[in-house]
Amino acid sequence: MPGATTLIRDIGTLVTGDPELGEGPLGVIRRAALLIEDGHVAWAGPAARAPAADTAHEAGGRACLPGFVDSHSHLVFAGDRTEEFNARMSGRAYTAGGIRTTVAATRAASDAELAATLDRYVREALRQGTTTLETKSGYGLTAREEARALRIAAERLEEVTYLGAHVVAPEYAGTDADVARYVDLVTGPMLDACAPHARWVDVFCERGAFDGDQARAVLTAGMARGLKPRVHANQLSHGPGVQLAVELGAASADHCTHLTDADVAALADGDTVATLLPGCEFSTRAEYPDARRLLDAGVTVALSTDCNPGSSFTSSMPFCIAVAVREMGMTPDEALWSATAGGAAALRREDVGRLRPGARADLMLLDAPSHVHLAYRPGVPLVTDVWQRGARVVHR
Amino acid sequence: MPGATTLIRDIGTLVTGDPELGEGPLGVIRRAALLIEDGHVAWAGPAARAPAADTAHEAGGRACLPGFVDSHSHLVFAGDRTEEFNARMSGRAYTAGGIRTTVAATRAASDAELAATLDRYVREALRQGTTTLETKSGYGLTAREEARALRIAAERLEEVTYLGAHVVAPEYAGTDADVARYVDLVTGPMLDACAPHARWVDVFCERGAFDGDQARAVLTAGMARGLKPRVHANQLSHGPGVQLAVELGAASADHCTHLTDADVAALADGDTVATLLPGCEFSTRAEYPDARRLLDAGVTVALSTDCNPGSSFTSSMPFCIAVAVREMGMTPDEALWSATAGGAAALRREDVGRLRPGARADLMLLDAPSHVHLAYRPGVPLVTDVWQRGARVVHR
Ligand SMILES: [Zn+2]
Ligand SMILES: [Zn+2]
Repeated sequence: MPGATTLIRDIGTLVTGDPELGEGPLGVIRRAALLIEDGHVAWAGPAARAPAADTAHEAGGRACLPGFVDSHSHLVFAGDRTEEFNARMSGRAYTAGGIRTTVAATRAASDAELAATLDRYVREALRQGTTTLETKSGYGLTAREEARALRIAAERLEEVTYLGAHVVAPEYAGTDADVARYVDLVTGPMLDACAPHARWVDVFCERGAFDGDQARAVLTAGMARGLKPRVHANQLSHGPGVQLAVELGAASADHCTHLTDADVAALADGDTVATLLPGCEFSTRAEYPDARRLLDAGVTVALSTDCNPGSSFTSSMPFCIAVAVREMGMTPDEALWSATAGGAAALRREDVGRLRPGARADLMLLDAPSHVHLAYRPGVPLVTDVWQRGARVVHR
Repeated sequence: MPGATTLIRDIGTLVTGDPELGEGPLGVIRRAALLIEDGHVAWAGPAARAPAADTAHEAGGRACLPGFVDSHSHLVFAGDRTEEFNARMSGRAYTAGGIRTTVAATRAASDAELAATLDRYVREALRQGTTTLETKSGYGLTAREEARALRIAAERLEEVTYLGAHVVAPEYAGTDADVARYVDLVTGPMLDACAPHARWVDVFCERGAFDGDQARAVLTAGMARGLKPRVHANQLSHGPGVQLAVELGAASADHCTHLTDADVAALADGDTVATLLPGCEFSTRAEYPDARRLLDAGVTVALSTDCNPGSSFTSSMPFCIAVAVREMGMTPDEALWSATAGGAAALRREDVGRLRPGARADLMLLDAPSHVHLAYRPGVPLVTDVWQRGARVVHR
């Protein structure tokens, strides 16, 4: 019923994400309560001052956090790359196609198959506390296939990214002239087909994928059609991606594993979030990005899963938090901020990632007294309840 | 009803752990079925040859694995060390008592509190596929407190270990003579009180805890009372623990992080399992043990959580598998073997850790087509169903 209110009572640790509501950058309130009305947070504060409500949910001293905002995934795909992973981690040679395997399988899949797979991973992420999930095209690589992927994604998710420039399509992988023709496709007819279904445009700016000039062409063409830019930048090597992202006002530069001092300075001076994806380095045995360096320079950092079947097949934001604390120099508080408010910043969203009055009631309870347990108890499925837009969609 | 049979049908990948039943060291059967009767595995083989049964459970192509055998945990405890972890990972000084915090809180807790905490973590582990769990005393450090811990553990678990020699009790921490008196207690009146409740005797053989002679005294005293030895060995530095374990025929030397070539050779020649505990190195930012070196030398390796509130508060065997593959040079197959059959070897058990006829029907289904996904999809809660002694105790 409209206007009905639900009070979450007896919260051990409430992370509001708003320094004006509680302690520190996370805005923590101990012994708290939170009021939901019409799918939004109506009030958050100390338990002793909780307002009356139509119904109550007892948190039993557990931690209550904003739902995770996972701002980077690749979940419109088909096919199985288990054996590629197995071979890589077992030190065996593996000669099959990598990403091309996924492209071939995705093209061959029906709409219903792609939709069912996406639904499955969205639900899986939700059970782990992810209430906002971005996903990308990039395994179709033709105008029709990319548009299909985006349409299927947009039917399910708000944050959808056109990534025709994921890799050069196999049909165009050849001479520089072939690649130039593929960029023409991505910035021309493919963009025409895709722009209506997406909010964002993205490009994999990397040696072996798209260089700085090509990346600029892709992003500016998308921006001219109303898409907002984000960039796969500096994952495997130094390159122009990060500085291009800042120059174009991209919401986020993602990966940021190999950064010069000038890259860090550009991020610190600009308005672009550095989104770090530790699942990727975990699953490819690569060097982790240095979150500490970025944080100390004043850069806004987000954490995300990069969930995809090739290089990071985790949907678990708690896992990414634990690895970020172990390996990237983040404190447990910083990692949680980056997985919630940081993800929201990387999507230029003000309505999610924090639990302040007016925000969407996207939140979770943990089987633990505080958010620190996400790093303290790695691998343990701690999320017990998830609310999305005020509806309790997960409970165990 | 006695004699009733249940057939698990349509298994995508069945890991039997028996090379005579299937492919490789894991004894893998693709498209398999498994028959449960009277709490045991009655038959395991190709789906096409499955026998008739009273009831059927459809696995829907999912992987079916032996339940995890977690051979090392410390779960009779009370108190909260979240802030110690938080400070360590945040680079802040923390001067409170470490393990002494847990000892004080454990002594102050009621039997019912300790039992409830243990029950909680046993259930949490079970939901993640752990069907056999060892746990230890070691936070009481008086005859009465250690015996109480073991009695509470033995009421719930089969594999219970007397670890009065975890650290020197605070009352005896002083001169060498004080420590010698504590060893007299551990090998005398405390052992008298504890031996009836335990199967194993263990000692933390490490600089700052118990030296080689003291460890030998603790283990041989326990063995004289019918307890079987296992050793916390070579965790923080090189030392005599591993070779002592092998010499005394211990079932397992646990940690094995700092090994000389002579230690590795001793393990390879002896009958002692090397139990590696990656959660501990993960949560303390310590160097990982080198599983590859041990495996290449022919050592039997087990994986375990070391679940405890100080140095490794994970109950997740899937997490340990993923970290072992990422960091310790294990293949996904080896890591699964070590988490099942390896754990059974570390507990000298023949009836668990494998799914061959006659074994206990302790097993799980994954929301994945193969066991490789435990490493391929780190952090994702993949366990959907768990059977323990033939009863389905977890389903989601
Ligand atoms: Zn990506
Ligand atoms: Zn231990």
